[in-house]
Amino acid sequence: MEDKSIGLVETKYFTFAPAPDELVLASGQKIGPVTLAYETYGKLNQKKDNAILILHALSGDAHAAGFHQKDQKAGWWDMMIGPGKAFDTDRYFIICSNVLGGCKGSTGPSSLNPATGKPYGLDFPIITILDMANAQKKLIDSFGIKKLLSAAGGSMGGMQVLQWFASFPDMLASAIPIATTLKHSPQQIAFDEVSRQAIMADPDWNKGNYYGKSKPERGLAVARMMGHITYMSDKSMEEKFSRRMKSKDYSFTFKTDFEVEGYLRYKGDSFVKRFDPNSYLYITKAMDYFDLSEGRLASGTGSDGTRFMVIAFKSDWLYPLYQSREIVNQLKYRQVGVTYCEIPSTYGHDAFLLEVDEQTHLIKHFLTSVCSGKENEK
Amino acid sequence: MEDKSIGLVETKYFTFAPAPDELVLASGQKIGPVTLAYETYGKLNQKKDNAILILHALSGDAHAAGFHQKDQKAGWWDMMIGPGKAFDTDRYFIICSNVLGGCKGSTGPSSLNPATGKPYGLDFPIITILDMANAQKKLIDSFGIKKLLSAAGGSMGGMQVLQWFASFPDMLASAIPIATTLKHSPQQIAFDEVSRQAIMADPDWNKGNYYGKSKPERGLAVARMMGHITYMSDKSMEEKFSRRMKSKDYSFTFKTDFEVEGYLRYKGDSFVKRFDPNSYLYITKAMDYFDLSEGRLASGTGSDGTRFMVIAFKSDWLYPLYQSREIVNQLKYRQVGVTYCEIPSTYGHDAFLLEVDEQTHLIKHFLTSVCSGKENEK
Repeated sequence: MEDKSIGLVETKYFTFAPAPDELVLASGQKIGPVTLAYETYGKLNQKKDNAILILHALSGDAHAAGFHQKDQKAGWWDMMIGPGKAFDTDRYFIICSNVLGGCKGSTGPSSLNPATGKPYGLDFPIITILDMANAQKKLIDSFGIKKLLSAAGGSMGGMQVLQWFASFPDMLASAIPIATTLKHSPQQIAFDEVSRQAIMADPDWNKGNYYGKSKPERGLAVARMMGHITYMSDKSMEEKFSRRMKSKDYSFTFKTDFEVEGYLRYKGDSFVKRFDPNSYLYITKAMDYFDLSEGRLASGTGSDGTRFMVIAFKSDWLYPLYQSREIVNQLKYRQVGVTYCEIPSTYGHDAFLLEVDEQTHLIKHFLTSVCSGKENEK
Repeated sequence: MEDKSIGLVETKYFTFAPAPDELVLASGQKIGPVTLAYETYGKLNQKKDNAILILHALSGDAHAAGFHQKDQKAGWWDMMIGPGKAFDTDRYFIICSNVLGGCKGSTGPSSLNPATGKPYGLDFPIITILDMANAQKKLIDSFGIKKLLSAAGGSMGGMQVLQWFASFPDMLASAIPIATTLKHSPQQIAFDEVSRQAIMADPDWNKGNYYGKSKPERGLAVARMMGHITYMSDKSMEEKFSRRMKSKDYSFTFKTDFEVEGYLRYKGDSFVKRFDPNSYLYITKAMDYFDLSEGRLASGTGSDGTRFMVIAFKSDWLYPLYQSREIVNQLKYRQVGVTYCEIPSTYGHDAFLLEVDEQTHLIKHFLTSVCSGKENEK
């Protein structure tokens, strides 16, 4: 397999403004102007039929691949996007945008509220996965793209893939939801709720009004630490940490004894530097509200033969296999073409970021087959 | 099955004091005087060979059965302890003590430090499961009991059972560890560490020095909420809550939308009224340090035929089956007699508190068999 980076990239911004170009939200509220931060890799062909929309998870952003100037850190799915990679930038035009409600350049609770000139905070309206998709749709429209070759993403990214299909089936030649679900179970809602409570319990949260003051870092760090437990499997934690200690013997204090404790503290502390606590609240809420069960995934009749590849990971206990199987069942029931792949990974939910070889193999062939299917139609 | 309560009970206190009757801890530190709160049910027979020690879990206490005056709430294992019940008070003398480090009458971080006349706070020494067992041993000795008919408990209670066997094998005719482990996995340590971080992140925690001031209730509530997720199974949460909502539609706020959110908030809020946050830190640390793997469970040769019944629950993902099987393997390797029971419950880790019928059946017969085995020896 090749391992070439797309190289230097930069984030761009798409704003739909001025009013009346507002976004009407699922809640009935309106918001505008809305900006989406996005990145593109590869070239849009003349027919504009080689575009793939990449959707990110809870803490992701528009920077999916390549490098920013003066930044060593590659995009969050760099191993999957680039020349010769799963999402081959020599063939496809890749678009990834930061979600509505995010904090990496898209309009979210940390953005300035045009009505007050101050950050929205909790005046930001509650948003849903549908609202995220509706905003992305405007971005895709702005390129003059009538139909995406594919939409792909893991976890909340997968929810957006499903929402795109539910809302705009004619705009998807194919769809790749990974490690995701039609709806959060009470356990998934519970984990989200505890992370929200951890943030809101921090006095620095101050009912969301902390911009320009000290932000609720401790609460957000606790939320993120808990998140990381759910992203790994019991087995992958055993393999990575076991009961190895930082020093030779127990400290007999509340300092870090075990490596796993140090890992979580590091992950919590580094996350607070790059993420807005209010965005964490809004985005987890959007995930909890998401519900395309009971026929809502494929209620329309307009699907022009969208082909699905659903990917799940055996050790993923946060988004268990039965949830992916339910997606497959719903698609089959509506006679939508679907390939289902269970990858025997031990990485848990994180596998969608880590199982590069398996996913590359599957996605590369799937996309090639989708392209040749389109050729045959002509 | 009968359903008679033991009725009114009261908590008693056992103190080993004055010095030099101190407890030497695993850390090398000493502590004294030490008080253990305890309750007893049934009668100790003349031979003093019908005593069963019940060991409680993280948030339990000495009040295992019956009712306190002016309190409607039964003890935490009332369904299992009483006339005709699994631990039959018509036949056995039941003892349950609050652990060292606890906050329900036993010496712990909220107790007065005799050296300062103020609550210990973080001056309380780090304690281990071994220290808990050593303190309990003094209580058992005070009754003149040479050998317990059994020691039984779930979760951290099970760890204490195992520790009792490792430390005092000659003092146990039988042992019943339930839903427990020889050692915490990194995932279990991780959950404990996040709950500790949640407490310590609360500014009211004030490095453990909050007695007489406002206590870190928000941090403790978050810790407890997370705990409750791990005590239930995905399936039991689905059965209990599914995605049912408190009101007819989404609130589009951060108020409680789903019943599961309301349940967790209630559980968190009610817990802070009855538990000391520092005790939570100390007790979870004791659980994380506990490690009787690598032959340490049954290293001694003095076991006078202790018989084990190990109970585990199929849906318990916090203390998974493989951990109970490892206990069984270690016992078999040392030729200790062991019966292993996997109960097909959907309740998750909470099953040791909820699966009354199955456990009653198993434990009642096991104890009868232990008694008749003793008779036969004569």
